[in-house]
Amino acid sequence: MKIFQVESPLVATARIRGLELHRMLVVREQGSTKKQVAVDPVGCKPGDWVIACGSSAAREAAGHKDYPSDLTIVGIIDFWDDEPPPEEERQGEPELYVVESATAAAGDGGRR
Amino acid sequence: MKIFQVESPLVATARIRGLELHRMLVVREQGSTKKQVAVDPVGCKPGDWVIACGSSAAREAAGHKDYPSDLTIVGIIDFWDDEPPPEEERQGEPELYVVESATAAAGDGGRR
Amino acid sequence: MKIFQVESPLVATARIRGLELHRMLVVREQGSTKKQVAVDPVGCKPGDWVIACGSSAAREAAGHKDYPSDLTIVGIIDFWDDEPPPEEERQGEPELYVVESATAAAGDGGRR
Amino acid sequence: MKIFQVESPLVATARIRGLELHRMLVVREQGSTKKQVAVDPVGCKPGDWVIACGSSAAREAAGHKDYPSDLTIVGIIDFWDDEPPPEEERQGEPELYVVESATAAAGDGGRR
Amino acid sequence: MKIFQVESPLVATARIRGLELHRMLVVREQGSTKKQVAVDPVGCKPGDWVIACGSSAAREAAGHKDYPSDLTIVGIIDFWDDEPPPEEERQGEPELYVVESATAAAGDGGRR
Repeated sequence: MKIFQVESPLVATARIRGLELHRMLVVREQGSTKKQVAVDPVGCKPGDWVIACGSSAAREAAGHKDYPSDLTIVGIIDFWDDEPPPEEERQGEPELYVVESATAAAGDGGRR
Repeated sequence: MKIFQVESPLVATARIRGLELHRMLVVREQGSTKKQVAVDPVGCKPGDWVIACGSSAAREAAGHKDYPSDLTIVGIIDFWDDEPPPEEERQGEPELYVVESATAAAGDGGRR
Repeated sequence: MKIFQVESPLVATARIRGLELHRMLVVREQGSTKKQVAVDPVGCKPGDWVIACGSSAAREAAGHKDYPSDLTIVGIIDFWDDEPPPEEERQGEPELYVVESATAAAGDGGRR
Repeated sequence: MKIFQVESPLVATARIRGLELHRMLVVREQGSTKKQVAVDPVGCKPGDWVIACGSSAAREAAGHKDYPSDLTIVGIIDFWDDEPPPEEERQGEPELYVVESATAAAGDGGRR
Repeated sequence: MKIFQVESPLVATARIRGLELHRMLVVREQGSTKKQVAVDPVGCKPGDWVIACGSSAAREAAGHKDYPSDLTIVGIIDFWDDEPPPEEERQGEPELYVVESATAAAGDGGRR
């Protein structure tokens, strides 16, 4: 899975059939400026750091084998410091990254 | 899914069997100069900004599991500003990107 | 699908079983110098510009689901100008790229 | 399969269903600074050099076809020298890299 | 399929179940310095230039659909000149690359 930051929703009145169940989000991969579009079964909001999976697993993650997604968000990272620590610090004890609890159909309300 | 701009149709009198249902378009990925070819079940025209999905989901998106596509357009983005905003503005409120309504078999007529 | 130019055949007396049906070609991706090897169910010759599909669709394109290919040629482009046009010209009317007719098992004879 | 170094666990109280069986680790690909997240059915600890597989094989490697992973660790490399040897030495006899024994559900205790 | 040079075996006493049938090799992609690990059903030795396939075809190539490989060697190239010829020469007649005969379960003995 790769790490992305959510940029903005992509309102999609028109999609091919099969993409109707979930909304799509414009996301930016960690360490890159290129934008991609991910299916969001979790309920993220702009600024969230998330993990998303691609390949055929993106179909599974979206809920069923026939869902035509190649990038699906599978979890929200509670804390992500995108600035790499200085080189000496990287030799030390690795910190834990905590992913907050959410159900697959959760909305945004009350998460922070 | 990744973001592409449609460049031109690719008239394909000859393809392997199984590629007969949809037409193919030469597309250029956002932020790149490299051209790829996408299957178009939606009905795009040159200049359109679209989202296309790859991997095994491209087969699903093209209509059935046996369709030999690894890049299929799944939606047309109504507005896409390819120029990145200045750095300060990126901290502000993210804007919505609207995808216009279209059915899977729609033609080009009357969309704009 | 991506765009490749055929470089040369790769005579393969020995392959794993399952690769026996089609021949393999050394191809070079458009805009790159890296060589790859594609399965050719169409019948290309060196110099041809072709479209090839990867991912799981490469198996479908090679004829059946069990064919162990991750890059299969699906069509020959009749005309491909690899030189990008000058920037002003790119704003104009896009040209059509024509793919010549060929059957999946066609040989090289008489195509040009 | 690609070679990664484990950086830290990613505590995931909340994931989509289906990701519940295994924990996830932040990993860094050999020769890169970009971080990814891998599913760990083996039992690695920070600093370990591992091999992980992607694509649809990541689902198989995680234990069953429906597991929504696109990157799964499949083995721990006992010795990996990330510094490339000087050019002359590379012409010599290649050394063996040994992967230590572990069962799929093994913990960290007593491995070193 | 991509072109790799075999670097060294990777002795794997411990792997997840399902990786037991074949050995793994450290390989380096042609034109790159990055190392990957490939499953070898053919029987290669260090220095060999090989073609390997990825994606879901790597599972097929390894012998059955459940094999968790995302990179499997499918043939040994008899002659591969990694030095690109000078630019004028590239316009000339393309040479043939010959892949030597080997069965899927062959060992190293007597091949050279």
